[in-house]
Amino acid sequence: MYFGSDNQSGASDAVFAALAQANQGISAAYGDDEWTQQAVRAIQTTFDSPAEVFFVSTGTAANALALACMSSPWQIILCHAQAHILNDELTAPEFFTGGARMIGLDAGREKLSLETLSQYLSQGSAHPPHNAEPAVLSLTQVTESGQVYSIEELAALCAVAHQHGLTVHMDGARFANAVAGLNCHPAAISWQAGVDVLSLGATKNGALSAEAIVFFNRPLAANLVPLRKRSGHLVSKGRWLGAQFSAWLNDGHWLELAAHANRMATLLEQGMAACPASQVIWPVAANEVFAILPSPVIEQLRAQGAVFYQWPRHFVPSHFNLSEHDEVVRLVTSFRTSEADVTTFLGHLNAAERG
Amino acid sequence: MYFGSDNQSGASDAVFAALAQANQGISAAYGDDEWTQQAVRAIQTTFDSPAEVFFVSTGTAANALALACMSSPWQIILCHAQAHILNDELTAPEFFTGGARMIGLDAGREKLSLETLSQYLSQGSAHPPHNAEPAVLSLTQVTESGQVYSIEELAALCAVAHQHGLTVHMDGARFANAVAGLNCHPAAISWQAGVDVLSLGATKNGALSAEAIVFFNRPLAANLVPLRKRSGHLVSKGRWLGAQFSAWLNDGHWLELAAHANRMATLLEQGMAACPASQVIWPVAANEVFAILPSPVIEQLRAQGAVFYQWPRHFVPSHFNLSEHDEVVRLVTSFRTSEADVTTFLGHLNAAERG
Amino acid sequence: MYFGSDNQSGASDAVFAALAQANQGISAAYGDDEWTQQAVRAIQTTFDSPAEVFFVSTGTAANALALACMSSPWQIILCHAQAHILNDELTAPEFFTGGARMIGLDAGREKLSLETLSQYLSQGSAHPPHNAEPAVLSLTQVTESGQVYSIEELAALCAVAHQHGLTVHMDGARFANAVAGLNCHPAAISWQAGVDVLSLGATKNGALSAEAIVFFNRPLAANLVPLRKRSGHLVSKGRWLGAQFSAWLNDGHWLELAAHANRMATLLEQGMAACPASQVIWPVAANEVFAILPSPVIEQLRAQGAVFYQWPRHFVPSHFNLSEHDEVVRLVTSFRTSEADVTTFLGHLNAAERG
Amino acid sequence: MYFGSDNQSGASDAVFAALAQANQGISAAYGDDEWTQQAVRAIQTTFDSPAEVFFVSTGTAANALALACMSSPWQIILCHAQAHILNDELTAPEFFTGGARMIGLDAGREKLSLETLSQYLSQGSAHPPHNAEPAVLSLTQVTESGQVYSIEELAALCAVAHQHGLTVHMDGARFANAVAGLNCHPAAISWQAGVDVLSLGATKNGALSAEAIVFFNRPLAANLVPLRKRSGHLVSKGRWLGAQFSAWLNDGHWLELAAHANRMATLLEQGMAACPASQVIWPVAANEVFAILPSPVIEQLRAQGAVFYQWPRHFVPSHFNLSEHDEVVRLVTSFRTSEADVTTFLGHLNAAERG
Repeated sequence: MYFGSDNQSGASDAVFAALAQANQGISAAYGDDEWTQQAVRAIQTTFDSPAEVFFVSTGTAANALALACMSSPWQIILCHAQAHILNDELTAPEFFTGGARMIGLDAGREKLSLETLSQYLSQGSAHPPHNAEPAVLSLTQVTESGQVYSIEELAALCAVAHQHGLTVHMDGARFANAVAGLNCHPAAISWQAGVDVLSLGATKNGALSAEAIVFFNRPLAANLVPLRKRSGHLVSKGRWLGAQFSAWLNDGHWLELAAHANRMATLLEQGMAACPASQVIWPVAANEVFAILPSPVIEQLRAQGAVFYQWPRHFVPSHFNLSEHDEVVRLVTSFRTSEADVTTFLGHLNAAERG
Repeated sequence: MYFGSDNQSGASDAVFAALAQANQGISAAYGDDEWTQQAVRAIQTTFDSPAEVFFVSTGTAANALALACMSSPWQIILCHAQAHILNDELTAPEFFTGGARMIGLDAGREKLSLETLSQYLSQGSAHPPHNAEPAVLSLTQVTESGQVYSIEELAALCAVAHQHGLTVHMDGARFANAVAGLNCHPAAISWQAGVDVLSLGATKNGALSAEAIVFFNRPLAANLVPLRKRSGHLVSKGRWLGAQFSAWLNDGHWLELAAHANRMATLLEQGMAACPASQVIWPVAANEVFAILPSPVIEQLRAQGAVFYQWPRHFVPSHFNLSEHDEVVRLVTSFRTSEADVTTFLGHLNAAERG
Repeated sequence: MYFGSDNQSGASDAVFAALAQANQGISAAYGDDEWTQQAVRAIQTTFDSPAEVFFVSTGTAANALALACMSSPWQIILCHAQAHILNDELTAPEFFTGGARMIGLDAGREKLSLETLSQYLSQGSAHPPHNAEPAVLSLTQVTESGQVYSIEELAALCAVAHQHGLTVHMDGARFANAVAGLNCHPAAISWQAGVDVLSLGATKNGALSAEAIVFFNRPLAANLVPLRKRSGHLVSKGRWLGAQFSAWLNDGHWLELAAHANRMATLLEQGMAACPASQVIWPVAANEVFAILPSPVIEQLRAQGAVFYQWPRHFVPSHFNLSEHDEVVRLVTSFRTSEADVTTFLGHLNAAERG
Repeated sequence: MYFGSDNQSGASDAVFAALAQANQGISAAYGDDEWTQQAVRAIQTTFDSPAEVFFVSTGTAANALALACMSSPWQIILCHAQAHILNDELTAPEFFTGGARMIGLDAGREKLSLETLSQYLSQGSAHPPHNAEPAVLSLTQVTESGQVYSIEELAALCAVAHQHGLTVHMDGARFANAVAGLNCHPAAISWQAGVDVLSLGATKNGALSAEAIVFFNRPLAANLVPLRKRSGHLVSKGRWLGAQFSAWLNDGHWLELAAHANRMATLLEQGMAACPASQVIWPVAANEVFAILPSPVIEQLRAQGAVFYQWPRHFVPSHFNLSEHDEVVRLVTSFRTSEADVTTFLGHLNAAERG
């Protein structure tokens, strides 16, 4: 019963088989190999875009390199207050950008709202060169609360950002789960909605370690090559990144993996909603369930071998009125989560004493 | 009628005379001169502390160097949402610290409250090494709203910060005005209240350009010398910084200058409170008046030669209900402001048509 | 006939099999998994040292993170003028250290000499805080010229460095080839000789992508964890790094791979020395051959499918008197190089017309 | 007898009088004042160029900001091995540029030679993105050895740099002494020779603290304003920088001050050349004398109150054959050096026992 994170699963069989094949023989290093080129084309085809594409090993690197390409060291990067780039990547954005400032908005909501963004961008306190100005909006799809921005929400947020001269980055560590959840074309929630640069993550959804930085707005990629090299993120045996991405995108494999994970999360949600001990916070839109559980229940579940994280209480909307005895938990499903895992977990949940 | 900023005045006569004297002859460079040493002793005596003291030319340098001595590049610096280090120094703190993160709290208040700080520090979302942790609390005395923290408020804020392992910096660009306003010993609102490092500004209150970084917590100064040098802030003719500070602190000169500025602000406040066209936002505690004025009044005052800044509307407490026709203004007095300036200004204010 | 680089080969069968096994099931992320712990112990056992060990994906990251742990931003890192960290990692050391300075010594030799190092360290031009001071000596074993420092050479260089207060880093991208070449214990050319921190590379010698930073001097590791995280080098699925290293070190596998590569280089050297068209520059000590060839010969070899790099002419010792028609080539062998590759290459070389 | 450095003198009477005048009244802050504007025009007129001009307080800031405008963090800045930016500004260039690399050439000569520069730039080891590429050539005029590049030498160096795509920076901390020494137009050894950006120093030659960054190549100034602000080098009371520069350039004052200093150095040189105890190393071209003296002579001179620095022995050309008992000294004259100072010094020198 592992619901700790989707990065606790390994690679899917198809992805791993591709790695095995790519491992044969000798090939050019540093991305000058056929697997890398094939993966670039696979992403261009998948997104129906002549994007510039670069591969790295970690999501933090993908996000931080993208942001460093999009901002000057004296500018501001806006994001949601719960964004991974703000709360889970130490100060990688500051490091890669040379000291740009991160500002998190809408702490009390599960998504960044158009109202908040518009108000922030129009507050007009600028007196250059004394104050920093926003240059980038970074959105997370799927959000840290497991929510998914609709096509319309994205388009509206990007439009406001562009009106004020910002470019838009998307942290797509769980982008596949969003596409599967919305059942839309990948372009619809990326470049067609106004996203300039996408961090496309495969690691959480079936790869060993493979992330792509996709520049739909190609001039923004101007400095990517030196930035990637000097940050130690140009791998010598580039083929293993390319091979993973090619297999992952091949024939809809990535969306099958994501759809399975999403289905497991919905099963969990349904079971938890039916259980008096648990209170689901936000409706499941992808592969994450957030719920309020009494502490004794959490202890019993863990004693039975369930693995999951507790979540900061201050991220919960105030109308939930958390008691002292309640805690917030996050359950994440992956392509490896089985129905049996879910059923077993729900059985333990229903059997738990509320204390 | 210059109320734009206290940095629009030059040096006081006494300070300038000291410069003239120091300019004679030849002396050792880079701070190895008698004026610098004398100024260090003057600060130690004034604060009744064996502090480590260093001089620089600008307030931004003093603040950013202090913060760089107090934090690692992967840590957080907390401050008030209106703090100068956050809004008026571009991204100097990020540059000097190598990418530490600035977080502004209590946007809706004129001071940082104990409640907000305590809540932030105890929210407990830490999961190292993924999230950045706060290392420094930076307080501004006088605040950007012209308010002054009481001795008790400072002691409480510093105590909470220290309990959570933070050290405390104070941006004292107008520290003299706070001492004059509270009529207290300088130590009472610095090291005795728990401040570890003080940026002590003379520039805004009678010097040409002279700021001191005062390390009451002396081990924190360990890296100041190389950081100052590589940031270009070790001046060769150090005597002119030392000479200014010695004269400024000599025989209470600094507090006389500050007390005069404060008196002029109080005169302004009284006159504006009595005028139906204007609404004073916060009670004057030092040398700044913040008020709401109808736009036509502002135009008429400027036409008469009055110089002052408009202030961001979103910094005004919500219960003031600003109308579309209102604007916020900031009036700053200095040691050079005369009663005649104030009287003239108030005359024009009372004569203005509200439109 | 691939002699371009040892990073053009994939993973060995044993290493890849370990990856396949580690890919099963679900395990803790970010290095809290059994494979990572096992790999740490394997390195400690191999080196007979309670070293602190951390894993990353690239050699540039391993080197730059090690150097960032060993120096302040205002200090100097000394290395050989041909060092990889100086010539092949863009400005990664400067980026990770926050601006420390790289100085390359002994441009005209194939190794750093004790004389040059001693002279540099004793030249005594220090006038702090104006000049930067050396803090780290970085040695490369195997060197960029394919040479190997003897145990005695290393001990002498480290001793001089330590006498002057420097710590010693070793770039061991081809450390395995050095151990195999010297037929010594790994400790003898690392901590026993005085090396404080080793970048131990597996990627060039049988792994897909796996590098370890080994802190024999453990207090130097104090900042490694935040530095690795904020540079995006903490991989989520840490098991694939651990699994590679465990398998690589298991039962002498790494040294068998290296010894094979070295043997192939020796075969090449012998054949080339016997051929009038080519002139071997330095005796082979590991898995690299450097030779002077007439340009027409190079063209013919490439037309036959041989892959290798040309090398900067100014790295060749002056007594070789390169003619205009000569070029320098580097041939690198790996665990995948076969005797047939070598024989075929030598056949083409002997058949080539010198033009 | 102060020959320690020209930064040990204060401001000239004319410069200080201008400061006194500028100190009156109230004026706009941050460079939006009439003195600053007047100084910009004075520099444009003096150089006969519509250059972009910015003021800072220190030479290190001027140099580092200029270099940060001219290079990316992954590029190389070339300079002479004895350059101030390399040996006397800690790692300010690395800090301001975000980690660009400094490379010093021609350690054994007193100037950078065309041969060395040409050879370096054409060595052709580039294999992007792995190696850093040179972007800037920084020349020092007057050099650290007190030598002056001729117009022809400068033009040739700049031409080679430009051919290879580099831009040229000049560290002109003693630019006035070079103009006075060559008796040429300031444009002839700056933009007409190919210099793109000049750090023009007044501090060493009659100002209290005033340096200008002069962008003849104006697009290079694009990032100067934010870089200056976030490094804490935008002074609030900008008028005192402007006032100094205006007075300094007014009516040839700067060149009179420099010519006096140069004359004093020539007097020193003549006297020292005639004294058997001392050996002048390079002919005096500006306001610095470098000489070899026996250690006992140095001690006797210091006992008599003479102030000067010893210089690194390894900077002396090898044909001088320094004995163990010899030391190298640097004597610097300034606008405040009197003939009496020189005569007294020479008297003590001639009277000293060689030991």
